[in-house]
Amino acid sequence: MQELNVTIPSIPSTSYPIQIACGTLCDLWDRLESKYPAHRKFVVTDANLVSAGHLNTLTKQQNIETFVIDPPGEISKHINTAIAIIEAMEKVFMGRDSVIVALGGGTVGDIAGFAAAIFKRGVKVVQIPTTTVSQADSSVGGKTGVDSTISKNAFGAFWQPDAVFIDVETLKTLDDTQYRAGLVESVKHALIADSDYFEFFEQNMPAVLSRDMDILEKIAFRNCSIKASVVAEDPTEKNKRRILNYGHTIGHAVESASNFDLLHGQAVAIGIIGATIIEKHLGMGDDTRTARISKVLEELGMELTIPKNINKDTLTDLIKRDKKAVNKWPKFVLLQDIGQALCTDGQWAHNVTQQAVDAALDQLY
Amino acid sequence: MQELNVTIPSIPSTSYPIQIACGTLCDLWDRLESKYPAHRKFVVTDANLVSAGHLNTLTKQQNIETFVIDPPGEISKHINTAIAIIEAMEKVFMGRDSVIVALGGGTVGDIAGFAAAIFKRGVKVVQIPTTTVSQADSSVGGKTGVDSTISKNAFGAFWQPDAVFIDVETLKTLDDTQYRAGLVESVKHALIADSDYFEFFEQNMPAVLSRDMDILEKIAFRNCSIKASVVAEDPTEKNKRRILNYGHTIGHAVESASNFDLLHGQAVAIGIIGATIIEKHLGMGDDTRTARISKVLEELGMELTIPKNINKDTLTDLIKRDKKAVNKWPKFVLLQDIGQALCTDGQWAHNVTQQAVDAALDQLY
Repeated sequence: MQELNVTIPSIPSTSYPIQIACGTLCDLWDRLESKYPAHRKFVVTDANLVSAGHLNTLTKQQNIETFVIDPPGEISKHINTAIAIIEAMEKVFMGRDSVIVALGGGTVGDIAGFAAAIFKRGVKVVQIPTTTVSQADSSVGGKTGVDSTISKNAFGAFWQPDAVFIDVETLKTLDDTQYRAGLVESVKHALIADSDYFEFFEQNMPAVLSRDMDILEKIAFRNCSIKASVVAEDPTEKNKRRILNYGHTIGHAVESASNFDLLHGQAVAIGIIGATIIEKHLGMGDDTRTARISKVLEELGMELTIPKNINKDTLTDLIKRDKKAVNKWPKFVLLQDIGQALCTDGQWAHNVTQQAVDAALDQLY
Repeated sequence: MQELNVTIPSIPSTSYPIQIACGTLCDLWDRLESKYPAHRKFVVTDANLVSAGHLNTLTKQQNIETFVIDPPGEISKHINTAIAIIEAMEKVFMGRDSVIVALGGGTVGDIAGFAAAIFKRGVKVVQIPTTTVSQADSSVGGKTGVDSTISKNAFGAFWQPDAVFIDVETLKTLDDTQYRAGLVESVKHALIADSDYFEFFEQNMPAVLSRDMDILEKIAFRNCSIKASVVAEDPTEKNKRRILNYGHTIGHAVESASNFDLLHGQAVAIGIIGATIIEKHLGMGDDTRTARISKVLEELGMELTIPKNINKDTLTDLIKRDKKAVNKWPKFVLLQDIGQALCTDGQWAHNVTQQAVDAALDQLY
């Protein structure tokens, strides 16, 4: 077992542990009971976790109040699901002393975290991520959010978890497409912050794809280290935290425009290539860099072009609605080099003209 | 013009001004423009403010994006209204740089503040309270919330305003029942924190009821001073801030059970008398104290008994769902004396048996 601690200097008394291990889910409930003896627990999970047996492994069929998100996935990451969770908690008289236990992937964590942020002005949430994307990314850092009928993450809050427990063994049951797409966030971490980590992917892809547990623990640890250090410096994304959005501005738009036919990671992979095109256009990237990045993403099985059925004007419209948009056109995170996000005059997000983005979109088709 | 500053030591860089004046609404928009030159503004108000002419006084018929809550009042303080506001902001491409300008009473402030807290993970909100209850209480301190179909303030967040502008002249157009009921929060402030202020009410009631502007400025200043000092010490209501809930545990239940036929202040007045009965039961109160408090509340026109059509079991059930409830029965704020909330072993909220509350409810009928 490895343990990291996320400490956020700018938010007093905010510090929480991330435990990374293999095969610990079956003992976790006892540890939660001893960590939170006086708190009532409420589990939020989804139908996939139930059918994979993970909910039972966690709660051992004890009679614990549970909300099962069904259907699982992005389609349920809507404000109505958060409302349904909170009304379910009210019906069983959960109070401000509640602890929400989020067992599942990124959407479970985002929805449950948001519900925790706004239930009776905020209750504790423990994250137990069970997918590559949530173990790499969304379970750490306190970003929570759900979609409106109009756009992604229209509703959200920064709400740090009280603890994060990662059991990489849960990845064994993950569907291969989900598994691979989730690793795109890990590649993104390598690209923005750690060139050695990127080389690790270049050198170890077969072991990664065969789900070698030692390799997965290493990946989880590396991801959480990068994420924790960025979040500690800038918890509410005023500046540096934006680097975590590398590839996401175009990625989010593609994901939305595909009506979630594309997984988050699949869309972000396209967005990453979009960013490398913009970098080249601005004179910062080169073909070798693009080729190395494309190769790793292709080995993960990612398609690096925008599906033909997605309309370009729809994408442009969605990019305008990006939640980080100021004056209707968002800034972009760019790479200075593999392992190093670009910082200019202290700023980590950059103005890119709509023309440059247009040109990148054209190349992505 | 008087100005106070709310500084919250436990939340770094959280400090905001409260300006109290008479007749300043007509110049306020220019000041907002110079305070937030690079931010797009979005006004949230309600139909009462439109018909009283205050929206026009503020915006001078400029073409400013505005959401008018209709019908006004508690009935619209529902999660669906917050969702409608946010979707309206999305439709006009508001970004994270938005400033929500909340013009109105407590419900406008609560809904708009909550929308600001959760729109794209949080945007600035400026509060311009226009009622006795919001000028006294809800505009300061960052408590925001909306109701679910099941209970009051089921959804909420602590989200401090960026500035508060109080123009007591807006109180001139306020309906008399609203005006009087809102002053109950001011009496509550006096009861928990300032015996001189309570005597001020005992001595100046005719001027208060005739809406003497000088008196109203004094009241606003006194209220905000008390509120700001309590909030600064305990922004997220871990302990001392609970004293602001004096009279509210029974009060909220009565308000809900009346289906909002009773105004918040009318219900809290009943809750305050409920608290004095509990205090007497516990050997802390006496008949003189109860008589002084009853007299001031009656001079405000408050009925101090629970309407006969409200079922006692419904009230008990609602008290159990109080958001501060731990183990299903909430703690109560009590007075040690007029002007002094009771603190025992460092705790400002106290265990009171269900029997004692039962007995108090019986006396209130």
